[in-house]
Amino acid sequence: MTIYYNPERATWENLSKRAIADNPVVAERVSGIIEKVKTEGDAAIFRLAKEIDSVDLNQLEASSIEIQQACDIVSQSVKTAIQNAFDNIYKFHKEQLPSGVDIYTSEGVRCIQKAIPIEKVGLYIPGGTAPLFSTVLMLAIPAKVSGCKEIILCTPVGKDGRISSEVLYAAQLCGIDKIFKIGGAQAIAAMAYGTESVPKVDKIFGPGNSYVTTAKQMLATKVVAIDMPAGPSEVMVIADNAANPAFVAADLLSQAEHGNDSQVMLLCKSKQFAESVLSAIEDEKSRLSRRGFVENSLVNSRAIVFDNDEEIVDFANYYAPEHLIVSTSNPWNIVDKITAAGSVFVGQYTPESAGDYASGTNHTLPTAGWARSYSGVNIDAYMRKMTIQEITYDGLVGLSKTIVTMAEAEGLQAHAEAVKVRINEQK
Amino acid sequence: MTIYYNPERATWENLSKRAIADNPVVAERVSGIIEKVKTEGDAAIFRLAKEIDSVDLNQLEASSIEIQQACDIVSQSVKTAIQNAFDNIYKFHKEQLPSGVDIYTSEGVRCIQKAIPIEKVGLYIPGGTAPLFSTVLMLAIPAKVSGCKEIILCTPVGKDGRISSEVLYAAQLCGIDKIFKIGGAQAIAAMAYGTESVPKVDKIFGPGNSYVTTAKQMLATKVVAIDMPAGPSEVMVIADNAANPAFVAADLLSQAEHGNDSQVMLLCKSKQFAESVLSAIEDEKSRLSRRGFVENSLVNSRAIVFDNDEEIVDFANYYAPEHLIVSTSNPWNIVDKITAAGSVFVGQYTPESAGDYASGTNHTLPTAGWARSYSGVNIDAYMRKMTIQEITYDGLVGLSKTIVTMAEAEGLQAHAEAVKVRINEQK
Repeated sequence: MTIYYNPERATWENLSKRAIADNPVVAERVSGIIEKVKTEGDAAIFRLAKEIDSVDLNQLEASSIEIQQACDIVSQSVKTAIQNAFDNIYKFHKEQLPSGVDIYTSEGVRCIQKAIPIEKVGLYIPGGTAPLFSTVLMLAIPAKVSGCKEIILCTPVGKDGRISSEVLYAAQLCGIDKIFKIGGAQAIAAMAYGTESVPKVDKIFGPGNSYVTTAKQMLATKVVAIDMPAGPSEVMVIADNAANPAFVAADLLSQAEHGNDSQVMLLCKSKQFAESVLSAIEDEKSRLSRRGFVENSLVNSRAIVFDNDEEIVDFANYYAPEHLIVSTSNPWNIVDKITAAGSVFVGQYTPESAGDYASGTNHTLPTAGWARSYSGVNIDAYMRKMTIQEITYDGLVGLSKTIVTMAEAEGLQAHAEAVKVRINEQK
Repeated sequence: MTIYYNPERATWENLSKRAIADNPVVAERVSGIIEKVKTEGDAAIFRLAKEIDSVDLNQLEASSIEIQQACDIVSQSVKTAIQNAFDNIYKFHKEQLPSGVDIYTSEGVRCIQKAIPIEKVGLYIPGGTAPLFSTVLMLAIPAKVSGCKEIILCTPVGKDGRISSEVLYAAQLCGIDKIFKIGGAQAIAAMAYGTESVPKVDKIFGPGNSYVTTAKQMLATKVVAIDMPAGPSEVMVIADNAANPAFVAADLLSQAEHGNDSQVMLLCKSKQFAESVLSAIEDEKSRLSRRGFVENSLVNSRAIVFDNDEEIVDFANYYAPEHLIVSTSNPWNIVDKITAAGSVFVGQYTPESAGDYASGTNHTLPTAGWARSYSGVNIDAYMRKMTIQEITYDGLVGLSKTIVTMAEAEGLQAHAEAVKVRINEQK
């Protein structure tokens, strides 16, 4: 982790580079997988499970017995923790339900905006080094709150052919309709096109490895809607000299343990502070079980010292971090000026891990600078807004000159006729 | 336009097919154009304007003199119409501004959802057979209402090297910052990557031909956010025997005149009604200036007779039309059950052209069945929702067991440590 001092703006682009590798081999493989699932359905999925993951599956859907067994296995302390997190996430997302609009824009011209849940949604939960059952809560609770009618979930099995018990437990707690033992690009293709076992969905949510992400990108805007472009996880910490270096180090490390390509960024006010955080990282990291990931992530990571808060705010918005922790004496002075971040953590007792699990905010957030244009997962992502208009005869008469003039100026005669035929009828 | 009678559900997929051609030649050309604009910037745009459109441009940005001249040319009646439409569109979109969320999910755990405008947006306005200045209003007004800081617009010039005066007038009325004389895939690439003249934007909005659409699809989820996947325009009319066949025919024709690949669908209750609409279409279409488009669109179009309302509602939601007109004696009986449509027009005095121009709703809507997962353009499309959390020491203590238990169950030790280090400090 290198320290930079008051870097010139011309260098910001480079300092904001994430460790994202474009891999044409992945794209080619994913293309092949999508085509197979699209044309052969379940048969392709069984075969790919064997070929890619060396797993022999009897059926794709988790049975009610498997789900029950998983629920029996999960410890009471984990169940209680999941329930506490569930309650906070539920509360915060329920508050987001839109109220709708119903107004008259002119006399006799009623315009309505009505939010309607997306009917069928598919959630992807990665397996791998850490089966993230917390992500089940983050994706399924807003789907339920929104009122989606069919919620399905795909997740890869381990070498033992089983889905993580915690993932199954969280899924049944959230009321997921069907759970499939399918991972990787196959899962995305199955939910996008539908197979004999897997229902075709309208929108796919959830993070994943480069195969999953590539499949989502390939099918987005063509076959199925997706939540957002995904990339390696990242955190930025803004800290002044009053911050506790051990807390800052712990936050940076908690992000760095995610994977080899995570990125952590520290923005601070003095060389001394940056150095004390780096030294705290050295102290703390040796005790971590996932220090391999940590070491690799730190290579992609940077500490930047800025003399003034204005530059700090500008750089933070330029970088547009997924997670932004503001640990300064007057954090709101900075937070109020933040325009591009996924989720913000205010003050020294608000670690990122609070939002990762239990504060109530969503942890599925835009990475790689997408916070400039995308929101994190929230209720809007599970609802569509449909507009409705109802116009009386007099209302149409009032609008008619406007519509006819504009339609004729655009050369769209039939658009004008659709108004004239109605007005003339009653003359 | 063929009439179908109570078609079996197994045939609905075919009956819902749109006239969308997948053209690999377009994809290859668009790829080439994107690469050129990305690497050569303005120079590539000047060259492509000459090669593709035979236009010699002096500069890419419309000058203030050009804009002033256009404003002088536009007739007072068109200006008044544009202002009336502007007022209704502004009113309806202003009502959509989100109120935000600010709650305590647990004691000491404050969670906020804050809507923030996307900073830089790019609007694309097609040229071609009908320069759609109404689309300028539909894309620029919500951008202004949302508070986007920089709004730019690209649109192709005609053979005379000029932008349509109405487009320029509408753009300056809406307060667009910069207007560029760039069309096609070049415009999308320029706004996505930025060039010497064209600022890089965070999100691109607007319809276009297959080149524009392909460029947006290629760059979406990789380089820039886009509003929605675009396709040929379409309308579905649901009418019972009490409806006026001449009105229904006029609505179908107003959609059919958009282009060769438009689609119009009629759902009704009797053969007689379907036939009288078809005969009214025959009567009316000969008087239309754009009847070439109309004839071609009608080839892609269908009339379907269903014996009962339930099937009508099911088919409408299955098809998920961009525009849905419900012209029946009790339209709300049907409208209340519609779950997938872009915009709905209720009753016999609410033609689609009212929403296309002036009722206040947006006319940039999801086509090709995307209404199952996408909203039409609305305020949400120009804003991101950022979450913020602020936790007190006691609040963190309250959450700590939940966070630590979940983090440890997920194998993420450093996530647990970030909480423990804070709690332990004060012990």
